[in-house]
Amino acid sequence: MGIIVQKFGGTSVADPQKIHNVAKAVIREKEKGNDVVVVVSAMGHTTDYLIKLAKEVTNNPDSREMDMLLSTGEQVSIALLAMAIQSNGYKAVSMNGQQVGIITENIHSKARIVDIKTEKLKKYLKEGNIIVVAGFQGVTPEGEITTLGRGGSDTSAVAIAAALKADRCDIYTDVEGVYATDPRIVPNIQKTDVISYEEMLELARVGANVLHPRSVETAKQFGVPLRVRSSFKLNNLGTLIIGVENMEIYKPVAGVAADTSQVRILLANLPDIPGTAAKLFGSLAKNNISVDMIIQSLASNGKNSIAFTVDADDLDSAIKILKEDDKDTVKDGEILIDKDIAKVSIVGAGMVDRPGIAADMFKALAEKDINIKMISTSEIKISCLVDKDKSKEAIKALCKEFNLETNEMAIVKGDLPDV
Amino acid sequence: MGIIVQKFGGTSVADPQKIHNVAKAVIREKEKGNDVVVVVSAMGHTTDYLIKLAKEVTNNPDSREMDMLLSTGEQVSIALLAMAIQSNGYKAVSMNGQQVGIITENIHSKARIVDIKTEKLKKYLKEGNIIVVAGFQGVTPEGEITTLGRGGSDTSAVAIAAALKADRCDIYTDVEGVYATDPRIVPNIQKTDVISYEEMLELARVGANVLHPRSVETAKQFGVPLRVRSSFKLNNLGTLIIGVENMEIYKPVAGVAADTSQVRILLANLPDIPGTAAKLFGSLAKNNISVDMIIQSLASNGKNSIAFTVDADDLDSAIKILKEDDKDTVKDGEILIDKDIAKVSIVGAGMVDRPGIAADMFKALAEKDINIKMISTSEIKISCLVDKDKSKEAIKALCKEFNLETNEMAIVKGDLPDV
Repeated sequence: MGIIVQKFGGTSVADPQKIHNVAKAVIREKEKGNDVVVVVSAMGHTTDYLIKLAKEVTNNPDSREMDMLLSTGEQVSIALLAMAIQSNGYKAVSMNGQQVGIITENIHSKARIVDIKTEKLKKYLKEGNIIVVAGFQGVTPEGEITTLGRGGSDTSAVAIAAALKADRCDIYTDVEGVYATDPRIVPNIQKTDVISYEEMLELARVGANVLHPRSVETAKQFGVPLRVRSSFKLNNLGTLIIGVENMEIYKPVAGVAADTSQVRILLANLPDIPGTAAKLFGSLAKNNISVDMIIQSLASNGKNSIAFTVDADDLDSAIKILKEDDKDTVKDGEILIDKDIAKVSIVGAGMVDRPGIAADMFKALAEKDINIKMISTSEIKISCLVDKDKSKEAIKALCKEFNLETNEMAIVKGDLPDV
Repeated sequence: MGIIVQKFGGTSVADPQKIHNVAKAVIREKEKGNDVVVVVSAMGHTTDYLIKLAKEVTNNPDSREMDMLLSTGEQVSIALLAMAIQSNGYKAVSMNGQQVGIITENIHSKARIVDIKTEKLKKYLKEGNIIVVAGFQGVTPEGEITTLGRGGSDTSAVAIAAALKADRCDIYTDVEGVYATDPRIVPNIQKTDVISYEEMLELARVGANVLHPRSVETAKQFGVPLRVRSSFKLNNLGTLIIGVENMEIYKPVAGVAADTSQVRILLANLPDIPGTAAKLFGSLAKNNISVDMIIQSLASNGKNSIAFTVDADDLDSAIKILKEDDKDTVKDGEILIDKDIAKVSIVGAGMVDRPGIAADMFKALAEKDINIKMISTSEIKISCLVDKDKSKEAIKALCKEFNLETNEMAIVKGDLPDV
């Protein structure tokens, strides 16, 4: 008996029949004796339809009015889901972001939640209601309607769970949980049973799309146990995401991911003068271009070379800045671009205490004749830049190397919420 | 320079092109130097679509959740209209019922407005904004979303005009104004230029569908000048609806209307005992059945007979009540039903001071051999029950009798708002 927050995305509530399926999953949790708050997104393609309507009215719709428009999508879902739950004989009440009091910054289309009022939620729960809350939306202290941007409904659910000190937040999706890598690449990959927030965040940043990093960050900040599970297979437990401090034994590597959205820029024959790197990356940062991996090396001829990666979308702007703003720094250095790269990463909280993981990774890649172009490491992640056409082979090799194809469970320490 | 409230219905905002037409009509009023608040309904068939969705979820949707669902329709319209106005270079801001503070009773699907907050409206107007308000919806003091029921958007507009002490409330429709009778029956009928609230109310009750009586009552209560005008012919002035005290000379009869939705029930051979009528109409009233016209007569045989009309929808319940609850009163009296009737009415504030109007009406009907089955009168209305197949002929005869085919204008006394 506790408080469970559930979240269902747009595909789960795409039509009345699917809404009834969601109602069943909600009632199932209520029947276990829990208080249930369920957060839903807009039905199926509603948001796309509303955006299309706005574009037909004007090419450049105001972001305040877009939020006013888009927030209706979730409001339709919550009313219909509340009706579906009621039609099964359960008490239910829907609430939009304003009614709950999901207070956000005064920024449209990508506001961050700053506070969640719990008075009304607690009152309705006490009265025995299942509460259906509109995801993706909030309200400023002045009563302006805002939306939370990408991954917004996940973030709404986690933030409500945090505010209510819920026992668990279940994110229902069309996959069965978190996998150590993309099952389309390694078909016999096993679903991960338990993973830490930190690992999940690193996996999300390198290309695993199950949860938006904002929702995982919020869960981590407030210690909300998250469960990613299937809308279609309600008996499956999915993947539990908890703090690393609650995990006793785990695999050194929790996941492998590839990111093919970056390009590499190599600046060769730069003069070896102190401050060169500071100048170059300073001007890129000033123009809001994020640089990911960086390597600087001194060539035998006394010239410097610097290689770094940026998002492919930022390539043109980056080149322009290097050629114009950084003309004096680059001087007669060469600018070489490599678009056919992939960043392959292994992520695992377990690598902190275990030396040799990096060496194992390099060896596994070398055995497949995969050349490593750049390396970067963080506390729980090691990334190697490889040729794009070798990325799938690299993933397969790394999954094999770190035993991710088997179903060895991470072992959890301490008390964990029931499922 | 003043405050003008405009209202556009669902057909006027049915698609992006039509929304741009509405934006033009709004900007036209703003360009005259007025502060403009525009109230809109949901786009075209949106409300029907949402009702259909709800019915697919459950046969018996909760009225609170229906209000949550339906109120999204207007919120879509206001966002799109605000965008359309902005795209023409004007400042605009949309507000839903909650944001304005359209406070209603705590009743779902047919709440009445109890208060309208004006702080935010005045602030936005002062900043030079055109304000686009969602019609048909409000919010209870506790923050529950309500809808106003039939004619709701008209009522929203009039109530906002009253709260802001607006100079005029323009209700844009697909007709050019108020007619003395249905133009489909009397093709050469003239549009009425000026009519009083009282006449408009009587005409609405007897079948003229231009404005919902609630909006006219609200306008009358707060003395808001109303103008019913065409969305398509912006230069036409339509019909002005004002207090009778502002009208100096007017036709004795402002309009003729027919109501074919009633049926007549005749109770013959009732015992002539005091209290019979009280008992009969008491039990009907207890069962929420409205009785309209009533005639009681004493027949030569010492038996009583009572005839009355009810809505056709209520006929079955009424007969059941008479046969069961009123068994002892009706006794061996006969119950006769006449479904082929029409109530034809003439309405006019001018008949108060002019005797003989009723006689003129009866004479006009008699000349066409139209038999009068029942008569009822109020201060500004005379109604006759006739055979249904004679109703059109009756309307034509009455329009001719009272010169409604010509365009003699009512003359207005005192200052009237500019157009």
